[in-house]
Amino acid sequence: MKSAEHLAGHYLTTDRGVTAPRGFLAAGVHAGLKRKRKDVALIVSQTPAVAAGTFTTNQVKAAPVVLSAEHLKAGQARAIVANSGNANACNGERGYADARRMAEYTAELLGIRTEEVLVASTGVIGLPLPMDKVEAGIRSACQALSPSGGDDAAEAILTTDTRTKQAAVEFDVDGVPVRIGGMAKGSGMIHPNMATMLAFLTTDAAADPVFLQEALTRAVDETFNMISVDGDTSTNDMVLMLANGQADNPTVMSGSPAAERFSAALRALCLYLAKEIVRDGEGATKLVEIAVCGAPSTAAARTIARSISASNLVKTAIFGQDANWGRILAAAGYAGVPFEPEKVTIYLGDVRVAERGSALAFDEEAAARALGEKEVRITVDLGAGDYAATAWTCDMTYDYVKINASYRT
Amino acid sequence: MKSAEHLAGHYLTTDRGVTAPRGFLAAGVHAGLKRKRKDVALIVSQTPAVAAGTFTTNQVKAAPVVLSAEHLKAGQARAIVANSGNANACNGERGYADARRMAEYTAELLGIRTEEVLVASTGVIGLPLPMDKVEAGIRSACQALSPSGGDDAAEAILTTDTRTKQAAVEFDVDGVPVRIGGMAKGSGMIHPNMATMLAFLTTDAAADPVFLQEALTRAVDETFNMISVDGDTSTNDMVLMLANGQADNPTVMSGSPAAERFSAALRALCLYLAKEIVRDGEGATKLVEIAVCGAPSTAAARTIARSISASNLVKTAIFGQDANWGRILAAAGYAGVPFEPEKVTIYLGDVRVAERGSALAFDEEAAARALGEKEVRITVDLGAGDYAATAWTCDMTYDYVKINASYRT
Repeated sequence: MKSAEHLAGHYLTTDRGVTAPRGFLAAGVHAGLKRKRKDVALIVSQTPAVAAGTFTTNQVKAAPVVLSAEHLKAGQARAIVANSGNANACNGERGYADARRMAEYTAELLGIRTEEVLVASTGVIGLPLPMDKVEAGIRSACQALSPSGGDDAAEAILTTDTRTKQAAVEFDVDGVPVRIGGMAKGSGMIHPNMATMLAFLTTDAAADPVFLQEALTRAVDETFNMISVDGDTSTNDMVLMLANGQADNPTVMSGSPAAERFSAALRALCLYLAKEIVRDGEGATKLVEIAVCGAPSTAAARTIARSISASNLVKTAIFGQDANWGRILAAAGYAGVPFEPEKVTIYLGDVRVAERGSALAFDEEAAARALGEKEVRITVDLGAGDYAATAWTCDMTYDYVKINASYRT
Repeated sequence: MKSAEHLAGHYLTTDRGVTAPRGFLAAGVHAGLKRKRKDVALIVSQTPAVAAGTFTTNQVKAAPVVLSAEHLKAGQARAIVANSGNANACNGERGYADARRMAEYTAELLGIRTEEVLVASTGVIGLPLPMDKVEAGIRSACQALSPSGGDDAAEAILTTDTRTKQAAVEFDVDGVPVRIGGMAKGSGMIHPNMATMLAFLTTDAAADPVFLQEALTRAVDETFNMISVDGDTSTNDMVLMLANGQADNPTVMSGSPAAERFSAALRALCLYLAKEIVRDGEGATKLVEIAVCGAPSTAAARTIARSISASNLVKTAIFGQDANWGRILAAAGYAGVPFEPEKVTIYLGDVRVAERGSALAFDEEAAARALGEKEVRITVDLGAGDYAATAWTCDMTYDYVKINASYRT
């Protein structure tokens, strides 16, 4: 496999995505929701599949979020149909009817049940879907379905993203090789809570539905839920996963060694996709990793890491390569978690810039160099316990403002 | 009085500030903490005064915040000494000793007790104060004290602010004319929780200390605590108030008609200063008022208004005059307060753009015009109750990024 990375016993490749696992077809077509780029994606399992998902916690949920959550209750699905360019959010009853029609029409063309189709949308909020175009897109996508259609599908879910985000992992489960593939899109309104903008995962492993949902929730919590582009949680966030068992492995159940291997591979794949989303965040020039350690609990570490990752002042300072660690400490301080500033140590890359909550006479050039890298690592040691968490964000640049000052018009 | 505005029975003028009330002297001098601009401010009551204050809720509190909170416990103070250019935050024990030295030295020169001096600092975090310069500044300020020194003092607390922010109100209490004067500074790291960056208020009214603290807390809650420039809560935020009784009115006590008049005037003054901070927010070109009504409680209305006011996506859309109301609804949706999106109505200025959570066929040009004003009003009616709250923010522009990418270096 091209550009394969060795990751704790499994291989991750970035040249394939949702069609890497056996028995999955996909397509991505242009239906006219966006001016030129592909805008309708379809992923289909050739056989019935176990399904899992996580959804936005925003009070305002787009129609496809509501519909897909309903369809997922059975723990089974065969297809995911998605459009970009229009979020189908805040469209009232018509929005729900349109989301349902997308499922129904896809089911009709594929000869499966409506409830076996999950629906996702991303794009502008508050405009009704042009259903004639959407239906034409679904028709074309059904015709274009192919075992090598993953790339097209990954393209068709993008909005302001500048590139596709996909990867696949391969590993052994009880001696049987299985694969998980995935694709995702960002790239603004990213501060997920239960799922990121959109990510779709497929696997040919046979997996118990309860285990699959648990494993997905856990992986999402440590990856997609720990990234932030702008602190805004979307109305449309969702992560969906289909497992069709085509690898013929013994069904993965909770608590088994196979479950651990599967979960580790799933987490690695989600982490790769989550970091890709941040790297391609609106206007981003840098990926910033914020590692909080020495915390009294995992929850405290998570909350503080996320607070730092959402700070505009931290993000603009990193853009400007300004070793302004006081902003990092201040952002930790308003996270709402008690800690003693006098015990805190802060590193920018390998440069220790503050100790016991106070400045050190550090090498300004070395610190600026650390902030000049494409990947910046900030470490905050609270000196108050053994728990840690990591969050990821990007720098905030002129282009973030530019992109978002004129997104809709 | 020049540029006087009539405000529900009291007059607000913007050509005077903390020295408008009788018996207050002030000064602002250049001590060399900033390259050229004034950087040490002093406000002194000629007679003992009742004092009140509110402070940042950030876990990381600057040394002067800790010291001033201690000194305030007696409910009495005579002087406020402040410097800009250096926040004296995250400087460990040395920071506290320096803050205390500022109080001590000021007290020595004025012939008052150390505990009667309140201290404030604003500027870069994590650099020790150059105490020789600070002390020289305090000496000059003591010499320069004058009944017309309010303007200089207002200048001396600025950092990235582009202009001073001061005002005074005059009104009758039990037939006796009294005055409240105030000054404030912004202009980044503004998302206060208990107080904004810095605001100092003086009054010649005689006021009961318990009443004064209550009235200040309430006024701050509805004004300074409802503004946001960038969602970052500072380590140095504080609002301090001195009441010296020089107007010879009967002491204002809680629950009296005089208390109501005093509170209304105080609120009007704080509101003026809070809006000035937002108007002069880093890179801001517009003041944005976010009115949430129809809420099930005041707390719900406040939380939702503040969530919208802190959204980068809303703020960039307003900069771009993009009537992207979906971002407003989405930001309401992740505030953490339950509501029914189907009942929500949204106005941009006077243009109703969404009803029952869905798009209306509104006049795009009229909406863009509303967003093109120097003062933009957004109204969100939740349709779920009788409570309301208002928050203020500014648009997010290229200049916000520019200013903050290179603040420290």
